[in-house]
This record gives sequence, structure tokens and C-alpha cells, in this order.
Amino acid sequence: MWLYNRVNSLGKEEIIMVKVGIIGSTGYAGQELVRLLLGHGDVSIEWYGSRSYIDKKYSDVYGNMFQIVDQRCMDDNMEELADKVDVIFTATPQGLAASLVNENILSKTKLVDLSADFRIKDVATYEAWYNIEHKAPEFIKEAVYGLCEINREAIKGARIIANPGCYTTCSILSLYPLVKERLIDVDSIIVDAKSGTSGAGRGAKVANLYCEVNESIKAYGVTTHRHTPEIEEQLGYAYDGTPLTINFTPHLVPMNRGILITAYAGLTKECSYEDIKAVYDKYYENETFVRVLDKGVCPETRWVEGSNYVDVNFVIDPRTNRVVVMGAMDNLVKGAAGQAVQNMNLIMGLDETKGLMMPPLFP
Amino acid sequence: MWLYNRVNSLGKEEIIMVKVGIIGSTGYAGQELVRLLLGHGDVSIEWYGSRSYIDKKYSDVYGNMFQIVDQRCMDDNMEELADKVDVIFTATPQGLAASLVNENILSKTKLVDLSADFRIKDVATYEAWYNIEHKAPEFIKEAVYGLCEINREAIKGARIIANPGCYTTCSILSLYPLVKERLIDVDSIIVDAKSGTSGAGRGAKVANLYCEVNESIKAYGVTTHRHTPEIEEQLGYAYDGTPLTINFTPHLVPMNRGILITAYAGLTKECSYEDIKAVYDKYYENETFVRVLDKGVCPETRWVEGSNYVDVNFVIDPRTNRVVVMGAMDNLVKGAAGQAVQNMNLIMGLDETKGLMMPPLFP
Amino acid sequence: MWLYNRVNSLGKEEIIMVKVGIIGSTGYAGQELVRLLLGHGDVSIEWYGSRSYIDKKYSDVYGNMFQIVDQRCMDDNMEELADKVDVIFTATPQGLAASLVNENILSKTKLVDLSADFRIKDVATYEAWYNIEHKAPEFIKEAVYGLCEINREAIKGARIIANPGCYTTCSILSLYPLVKERLIDVDSIIVDAKSGTSGAGRGAKVANLYCEVNESIKAYGVTTHRHTPEIEEQLGYAYDGTPLTINFTPHLVPMNRGILITAYAGLTKECSYEDIKAVYDKYYENETFVRVLDKGVCPETRWVEGSNYVDVNFVIDPRTNRVVVMGAMDNLVKGAAGQAVQNMNLIMGLDETKGLMMPPLFP
Amino acid sequence: MWLYNRVNSLGKEEIIMVKVGIIGSTGYAGQELVRLLLGHGDVSIEWYGSRSYIDKKYSDVYGNMFQIVDQRCMDDNMEELADKVDVIFTATPQGLAASLVNENILSKTKLVDLSADFRIKDVATYEAWYNIEHKAPEFIKEAVYGLCEINREAIKGARIIANPGCYTTCSILSLYPLVKERLIDVDSIIVDAKSGTSGAGRGAKVANLYCEVNESIKAYGVTTHRHTPEIEEQLGYAYDGTPLTINFTPHLVPMNRGILITAYAGLTKECSYEDIKAVYDKYYENETFVRVLDKGVCPETRWVEGSNYVDVNFVIDPRTNRVVVMGAMDNLVKGAAGQAVQNMNLIMGLDETKGLMMPPLFP
Repeated sequence: MWLYNRVNSLGKEEIIMVKVGIIGSTGYAGQELVRLLLGHGDVSIEWYGSRSYIDKKYSDVYGNMFQIVDQRCMDDNMEELADKVDVIFTATPQGLAASLVNENILSKTKLVDLSADFRIKDVATYEAWYNIEHKAPEFIKEAVYGLCEINREAIKGARIIANPGCYTTCSILSLYPLVKERLIDVDSIIVDAKSGTSGAGRGAKVANLYCEVNESIKAYGVTTHRHTPEIEEQLGYAYDGTPLTINFTPHLVPMNRGILITAYAGLTKECSYEDIKAVYDKYYENETFVRVLDKGVCPETRWVEGSNYVDVNFVIDPRTNRVVVMGAMDNLVKGAAGQAVQNMNLIMGLDETKGLMMPPLFP
Repeated sequence: MWLYNRVNSLGKEEIIMVKVGIIGSTGYAGQELVRLLLGHGDVSIEWYGSRSYIDKKYSDVYGNMFQIVDQRCMDDNMEELADKVDVIFTATPQGLAASLVNENILSKTKLVDLSADFRIKDVATYEAWYNIEHKAPEFIKEAVYGLCEINREAIKGARIIANPGCYTTCSILSLYPLVKERLIDVDSIIVDAKSGTSGAGRGAKVANLYCEVNESIKAYGVTTHRHTPEIEEQLGYAYDGTPLTINFTPHLVPMNRGILITAYAGLTKECSYEDIKAVYDKYYENETFVRVLDKGVCPETRWVEGSNYVDVNFVIDPRTNRVVVMGAMDNLVKGAAGQAVQNMNLIMGLDETKGLMMPPLFP
Repeated sequence: MWLYNRVNSLGKEEIIMVKVGIIGSTGYAGQELVRLLLGHGDVSIEWYGSRSYIDKKYSDVYGNMFQIVDQRCMDDNMEELADKVDVIFTATPQGLAASLVNENILSKTKLVDLSADFRIKDVATYEAWYNIEHKAPEFIKEAVYGLCEINREAIKGARIIANPGCYTTCSILSLYPLVKERLIDVDSIIVDAKSGTSGAGRGAKVANLYCEVNESIKAYGVTTHRHTPEIEEQLGYAYDGTPLTINFTPHLVPMNRGILITAYAGLTKECSYEDIKAVYDKYYENETFVRVLDKGVCPETRWVEGSNYVDVNFVIDPRTNRVVVMGAMDNLVKGAAGQAVQNMNLIMGLDETKGLMMPPLFP
Repeated sequence: MWLYNRVNSLGKEEIIMVKVGIIGSTGYAGQELVRLLLGHGDVSIEWYGSRSYIDKKYSDVYGNMFQIVDQRCMDDNMEELADKVDVIFTATPQGLAASLVNENILSKTKLVDLSADFRIKDVATYEAWYNIEHKAPEFIKEAVYGLCEINREAIKGARIIANPGCYTTCSILSLYPLVKERLIDVDSIIVDAKSGTSGAGRGAKVANLYCEVNESIKAYGVTTHRHTPEIEEQLGYAYDGTPLTINFTPHLVPMNRGILITAYAGLTKECSYEDIKAVYDKYYENETFVRVLDKGVCPETRWVEGSNYVDVNFVIDPRTNRVVVMGAMDNLVKGAAGQAVQNMNLIMGLDETKGLMMPPLFP
């Protein structure tokens, strides 16, 4: 029932279905992936993986899927999955994807990994920040960092997509044009980030109980958050190829979805609003999912909820010669599942925006 | 970009587009209608009516529509609209639709009215509960009450659809099978309803400020809420044709979307779970948008958010010989805009579920 | 620093300090008890019991107490505690208080039990609804149900106070005058209750995570909630001495604190607003903590947050000859810790309102 | 009923009551002032000023005060008030206090102004940022900036107290020791601030409706917020007497109360945790209301709600040689009404902490 007809080059109607499997389908990102793929039109979900809920009905874990998903949860068998599907999504804890993947699997299927296992090129950096040994370093080199707006062409031919982190997607896309065009002093970059609570995952922890999160805000992982080296590496590629060094501070906000980043950096030269706006337009005016807002409008997470959009804008402060850059995004969509679908569309030769054009849900 | 090809009876591809106009497109229900129609596929919105924001860009009123809707808001000119569109939606304050409609308009177009103007057949009852004079009583008789699951056939041929109220849709669908099959004492019905705050509208009132609604719950309109006679009339048709008399108490809940009704009624005879389940299945097992949950599962508004589903279930209390019936729904979708689209699909001969099959958004 | 001088009967100044210990001081109710006792003025907390956090600094468990409480958490040693303190509070899971209490302890100290162990006089009823064996049935008879407004005199002389449940306190105080004066048909009573999430406790459960509770409302424990027999027994004493039979349905609301009950009952005779108001005034006009609101004003939980007040009001529905009764209360204060302090004041001969006169916190 | 006896120097009991009046008592800050003063013990509120609600019962405007405050709201007559009370609090829009005050009034009473009128010494700066003409510049010089921890002695003798802003109190107290001891490069200071919605006031604006604020976060007033020059001036006094220049960005958070500031600055020399901790202790270890948290603990607004505490802490980032400073506070208490009471205590010779020792309310 999620299908639409399409017409092929010969004018004949045909139904093209991409078969996919999800390992880790019962986390918040995994469930969002299910929601998006069900509405995609050209995709059939063959495997609802969830080690925690093996044999349990998926709709008993997520009541919203009652009478929509009839399947039961399956164990994490990537070998079997590789024979069944075109694309495997891993929405799993750090380290698992790397421990399961091998050449045989990659010879039969594509892997879109929503964890951090293949995001960082330098194994030592990965192991230092994540404090775990990398189980498949041999595949890191070929993995493509799946930030579609920046690595579009490379993604199309990849076997492994390292789907970017939530904070990192928002931070990189917000700052990329300024770094690329060398308009800001890269040693002065500070990113103050705020995230909704779904980013903390569905684990049963006292710290994430309703009464502990509600009516409060706090910073966490100050100077130590794992998304820091990922932002530093990717912005480094946009600059001189070597990682930058920045301050990154995440905060927990009492809301379900949404990430807002507020970034500060010194300008390398005097710039007018028009100068900087021109730079953002240069990189984004043809991008469907990055919306550079009108002058004076600040991004708000409510305007992107449930969608794949990233809203960005900036304000120049002549008093301090700094620029304040803001980006808003849904952490579960463009920050996870939506970007994963966008990557799948690219590697499977589908329209990049397929299944991702729903307008944001408000209120 | 919201279009998909379809194949007609001759095997030829064609694009069938329904032209619609919205009067009152900047209220919460109006904006939700815009969101749903943009994703529908066979609809083009020709008119974004909003007396409060004439000439203002629609996306300046609702930032989520930035780069999605380029049109500006228009005045409420139903005559002009009738020449332009196939269907007019009125998401306006009570009394406005009745004051604008006339035979000439209805001869050219269909009207789906989201206000209460054409819901109640007895003008005196309408005027008593709404405390306004009805401006077009001559059209009340032909108007069809647009509760699709119950009045499907009549809706298909109607010129005026009275789109049901939010509380009423949830209350009627939850109780209908029990009333229709005379399993409950209709004089004993009590409906205790809880609604998210979007139901209060977008008017700037102190009572609806964040700090006034957050961290609190209250009843309001006790014994006097306007949805009472609507429920009484419709359930009456399911019983003996005359309105019932019930208690209805709405409550304001600190959340954006969602309605939960908890209804109580005495059983007319001893019933087992299976007896009552069979009755619900009789009416709903072929209905896409009414989900009768598994035994012991209570409806929760989070499982229907953003979707057109109504989740219902019941518990028998042998100690009091009462049945407790629960229904959960998104007040802006099945309770307003979604049902309006469902009605449009029916009157235009489209698949009733077209544009409404998105799974609920969680969290 | 929490002390104030008082003047004794001889006109001499003296400091009277009540020594107390808390078993279960790290649950939400236990922590609220700590907050209230710290501000009381005549109380010194000698023992912060918490089996889960033995030897951990109390302020590491509850950061609000940093630099206010220096003590560490202690094990549950009621024997030792009995030698140290005048009053023991047990804010513990069902069954624990009954398993710890004995004659020796009661000969040295008073017990205010916030659990349900001594609330229900009929052991069979307790064991049926709580599904556990009662370990100290011999003390049930002497235990006094600590609903101060109703059992004030009996409380003063008690050794064991059964501190009422949250839902029950609000339900009983809201309905008591009508039942006592036989103005309502006791077989027709339906209580639809709504509670904030702190009522669910601080246990790490997925169902209570922020993202699971936020933006949703649901009923739970339908026809089976354990507070049902407690309400039925106490209202029964107000009527003819035998328990009533009612419908009670609790709901979980996305807010931290607060309980609202909406009760429905048939009137036994025609009553005017004045008739019923007079009955409420008869029982409550001299009560500090029960506020009968002005005509037409509905109780809201925001107006009692952080305080010991219960706000009640009613609306007569002449159409159905029912009365709709509403009560609002802070579940952690009058519904737990505040009432426990009120009981302590009574048994220790202090001013009943001592330490409880803070106005509600808003917003 | 809010009174406690005290013993004077002669050992005689006496009741000392400070008479106060509040102009602007129906805003959120004004109402919080009422709540705190009712619990103070030595204060009697003689005047509930509110131009918007003249003659209306105060408890009809704020239901929490039902049966606690019987008075009605009065007009803003500062002359009459000066004859009646010892202290006048003005919790009013910018410009009003300056337009009402004069020498005659100040000769009879003390003024604690919660608005910004007397906070900034340079009239031109005030008029530039607030865009209004200052009506009483002659009193700016003598006004004392009421940040008690820093200006304690000067406050005691003042006739006019300029009660600090909410963001400013939190920002200044968090950074003061580092600026005073010249441990940070004052040109590098960036303050990223987050506030609950009560800071936006009780005005009926669409932007502050529940559904507009809930489930979202945004920055506002970027580079232009009026608290910027106030922070710059006060931190300047701690440095070299001239205002600093900083970046300040406020954000709106979906919660009622609380401010969190996250500040970034470059260190002027290599510092260990102990070096910086020693500096914070030097200034705050004897301060009741500033709590320097344990190493590694991040301030959270939930731990200070309803109290006068400011929780501060810091993290050194050796990678960037910056220090990240965090401060959490209740914007309505230490950020407004609580600090106003603290100032009143100082100017009236009462214990500075009187009426402010309640522990924070959680959850």
C-alpha cells in the first residue's frame, strides 16, 4: 500500500522496489527509519532487527505501528541479511557495525551505518574518543562520510556510508560555507549546541526520566563529547585537509526532537550581510534540504520537526567582529534516519529527495 | 513536486489535480490542512485565505512552510473562489461559513466546512449552544455530517460537508458500536475528554500562554461545551433517531496535539470481553483509520500523533457493570484537517485514504 | 539555620525540636518530605534512609540539596531509628513498613507510613488488590487513617498513621460532604483522575522516560488501580460504614506535579448551587488546606503546586441531574509529604499548619 | 499568620514589620515577589499595585493566592505609597520607575527597582540600547547596582537599588572571579544563555502561546539584547573600570523557570582545576546563595527552581586553552524577586537571607 507506479525509459510502467533490512530498528533512530521507509514508496523493509526484542511484534514495541507493521523483531544476522536485501541500515551502539561487517557482506549489499564506526578516518582518534577498539579498520578508508550536500558524488559509488552524527550534521552544514571560503578564523570556532531528549536514546536511565528532564536544561559532556572530533575532521577537509580544533558543548533540552546549534567565530575580514549571504547561497541555493532563512530570521527547531530540512542563518556582530551562526534540524530525521534515506536514495540511483518531501509538522 | 503519475482506464497516464481553496488557512487546523494537502499528490492549493494576514507571505506566518509555500494570504472571497476551485475548505470561526455560502457558490463548487455551522440539524439547538443567529438555515438540511466511517455513502454525493468537531469525532467513533447495538444504557453515558492545547486555537490570550498551560491540567466548559449537542445528536441517530442526553467534560492538557476520551456507561446486559470486541470488529475491522487495540492495551495519544488514526479500546468493570471506553486521536488530523481531506477524497471520487497513510510520528 | 524561637506557657523562650527519621528518603515523596521538614522550623532530620544509596551523600542523589543537606544515606534500621527519633516516616514500597514495624518500636516512637500498608482495615481486601501478604495485620486495627480534615482527633493519639494515597486524598476530600450529607447516589460515583508523572516514582523504566510521557496522555490501571478500595472504604465510613463501589480511572499527564479529579454522581434530590455550596462550607470553611473555590471557577493544578492546598468546586448539570465535582492538589505535598507533616504536627502537638503555609509556586 | 517572634537587644520579644508596596504586582516577577514576601516573616504588603487590574481581587488574577491574599489591585500612586511604606518595589516596564520617582519620595522611602532604569550609569548607553529617553537621570549616580554578593556594603546605605537583570545576575556571578583575577582574556568572552519562558512576561502574544514555545528552542535578540551592556559595565568594574565588549546570545527554552548560561573565554595563563577552583572559593565560599559545585558536576536549572541559589562550575579545555563556565539560576527568584528581597533585607538591616532559605523545589 506504500507503492506508487513509475514509468521507465521505455514508457512502461514498472514497480521498482528496494529491499532493505534494519539492524537496531527499535531505538528511536531505528523507529524513525521505519516511519520514513514505510512512506517512501520504492522501498520494502524485509528485516526488523532488534536484539532486545527478538520475536516480539514490532507494533508491540511501538504502538504507532499497530496495523501498519505486522512483522516481528529479528536477531542481528548480517550474513543472512546480505543475501536478502539491497541495503542494510545499522542503527546500533558504537562498535557493533564494525564487528559485523566483512568483505563477503559488502560484496552482496550496501551498508548505511548510523553509528560512528566509519565516520572518523584516523583509527587512533576514534579509539581515543570512543574508548573502544575498532574491529574493522580495513574498511574505514573506503567508507564515505554520508553528508549528502557535501559528498554527493562519492556517496553514489560507495559500499559503506558512514551516516553523520546529529550534532555534527547541523554544525558542519551551518559552518561549511564560512570555513570553505576562509571567512572565519578557524581557531576561534565555538559551537554551543542544544538537543531534544530523543538524542539520549530509549535506554531506561533515571537521568532520562520525564521528571528529571522536564523543566530543566543542562550542559553535558563538556569538552569531551564524541561528536567533537567528527566536526573537526570534516570542517578540516573544507579548510586545509587537517582537522581543526574547536569548542563544542552539547545541552539537553526538555523537548522530544530538534537540535539547535549556535556557533561563534571571528571574521577574517570585514564582511557585510550581503557578502556572507552570497557565500551561503553559493553552496546552498540549489540544495533542497538546506534552507538559508531571510535576513533577521532565527532558526527554530519547531519549523523543521519531522522533516529533513536544516534551517540556517547568521548575524554579524560589528562590536566584536564575530559572526553568530545558527542551525536548526530534527535530530532524528536529517540528524539520523532522514539522512540515511537520502544516502540510500543516492546509492540506489533514486531521486535524492524521494520519501523525504513531507513538510515539517507543526505544532 | 507533490505529484505522482496515475494511469487511467485507457491505460494512459494522466495527472488528475483537484483544485482547492482554504478560507482560514492560518489557524492551526488550516495550517494542518495545508500540510496534508501539500503531501496529498492529487491536489493543488489555489487560495490561501486569511483575513488576518492578507498579502503576507504564508511562510512568514508559518516558518515550517519556508521555500515550500510561496503564495501570499488572500481575503475571504468565496464567490471568486467558487469560480477557481473544485473544493472550498472553511476553517473559520463559527458563523462565518454560513454567512458566506449561497446557491450560486454551491452550484459551482463543493464546501467542506470545518466549523460547526452545518453540523447540527436543529437550528434552535445550534443557536442556543453557540449563541449566534444562523445565517443560512436553508442549507442545513442538505449538509451531510462528514463522519466518513458512518456516513460514507451520503458524503459522496453531498455539496456541503459539515466536518465533525474534534471531541465529537473521538467520542462518537468510540461509543458508536455500543450505542448502535444497544449494549449500553444511553442515559448513563459520561464522556470525560482531554485535549492538547492546539485545540484552543492560535489567538493571543493570556490563558493560553506557555507558562499558564504548562505544568497544569484543568476542566473547562463543564456542562456547557458546544460539542455536547453534536455528540448527543449523532449518537441519537445510531440509537432511536432522537438526541441522547449525556455528560461531557473537556480538559486542557499540557501538550500540543491529541485528544483522549474516557467514557463510562452501564451495560444493558451481561457481556464478555469477546461479546463487545465482536461488536467493535463488526463496525471497524474493515476501517483503515479506526484501530481497535488488542485486549488490555489502553489508547495513548502519542501513538496517533500526526496521523488520521483513531485508536479505541474498552474495559468491562464487573464490579459496577459498567464499560469504560477509551479513544485516542490527533485533534488536528482526524479531528479536523485529516477528516476534511478524507471527506474531500470521497466527494471527488479519489481513494478515501489518499494522502492520509503516513504513520504516526513518534516521539 | 531552619530554627525559630517559640515562647512556652511560662513565657520563656525555648526551642522545641522534633527528631525524625525517614526510611525511603530518596524517592520523590521522600525527597519532598526532606524539603518540607527542612523548612519546618521545629524539626531535625536525624536519619536519611535509602537502601539504594547507602553511604552516598544525599545531595549527590538530589542536587537541589547541595550545601543544604550534608548527611549520607543510611540503611533501613528501624530498631536503631526508634531509639533516636520521635517520629519515623516510611516512604517505601508496599509491604516494607509492615515487615519492619513491631511493638518494641511503637513503644518508643510514632510511625507515619506513606505506603498503603495500614490504610485498609480488611486484610483480605489489601492482599487481594496489592497481591502481597500483610506482614503485620495485628497493627492494622490501631492504625489511624491520616486524612487530617476528617480524622483529626483520632490522629492526635495514634501510634501508627496510615498516610492516605495521593488519588484517594483528592477524591475523598472532593466528595466527602456530598456523601456524608447523602446528596448523591453512592452507586453512581465515577472518579476520572489525572496525575503528573512524579506519581509514577523515580524507577528507571522505559515507560517513564521523557520522550515516552511527553506530548501524550493515557489511562492506566483501568478498573484495577489500588487506590480504588481505599476510596471505597473511606467514603463508606462517611455513608453507612460499609465500603461503596465506584469506578476509578487514573490517567498519566505530561507534567511533573499535580492531581486533578473529575467526579460524576447522580443527585438524590433537586439541589441549587447554594444548597450544595452550603454543604461544602459546613465541612470546609474552617479548614486551612481545603479551598472551596468561587462559583464557576474550575480547580487547576497550577494553582496548588508546591503547597498543601486542595482546591475543590462543583457544577450541577440540570440536564442529567448529575453533579460534576472537581478537586486539584499537589500529589507530592497534600498527596504525600505535606499531609505526612500535617499528621506529624498533630501527633506531636504542634500547630497543624506549621511548615505548610508556603503559598503555591507559580508559574 | 506569616509572623514569627524575634528577640531584641534587651531580650524583649517584639515584632518588627517592614511595610512594603509593590508597583507592578501582577507580572510574573511581581507575583513571585508577593509569594516570597508572604513567607518572609517580617514583612507586610500594604499595596498590590497593578494598573491593568485596578480594583480586581489579586487572587482573581493569580488563583494560587486564593484565601491567602484578600486585597484588591491598586493604581500606581507612588506619592501616596511613599507615605505608607518603608520600601517600594517597582516590577514595571522600562521607563516607568524613572518617570515616577522624585526627591520627595526618596526622602520618605526606599526604592528597589526591578526594571533596568537605574542599572546603567551612562545615560547615552541606556537610551541607545533601550531606545527610550531617561526621565530621571539625576538619580542614576546615587542608585546602587543591587548585586548583593558584590555590592553588599554600598547597598546597605542606598535609597535606590537597581535590581539586576536575570541574565546579567547569572552571567556576572559566573564570570566575576575569573575577570577580577584577570585569569581570562576579557576580549574573548562569549555568553550563550538559555531562559525559561516566564522571562518573556505575561503579555498576550502569539509568540508566547503554549503551542508556539513548546517542543522548540530558538535564539533571539542576537547581538542586540539589552542585558549585554549591563554585563559589560559590571564586569568592567571588576576589571579596569571601563566596560568590556562581549558576545551575548539569549535563547528561549520550553520550560517555565530557570536560566542557564554557558560562557567561553580564553585563559590568560595555564591554569589547573585547583587554581581556578581556589579563585571561585575565594569569592564565594562564604556566600550562602552562590554554590560552587563539585568537580565535574554541571549546573542544572532543576536544582535551583523556586530558590535564590546560583549554581556555578567550570571546565578547562586544554585543547583550546579556554575555560567553559556554567551558571544555573531561577530567573524569577535570584534573577528578580528573590534578589529584590535580599536587597530589601540589606537596606532594612535584616538578616540578608531572611525569607530566602527555602530549598529548591524538585521535581
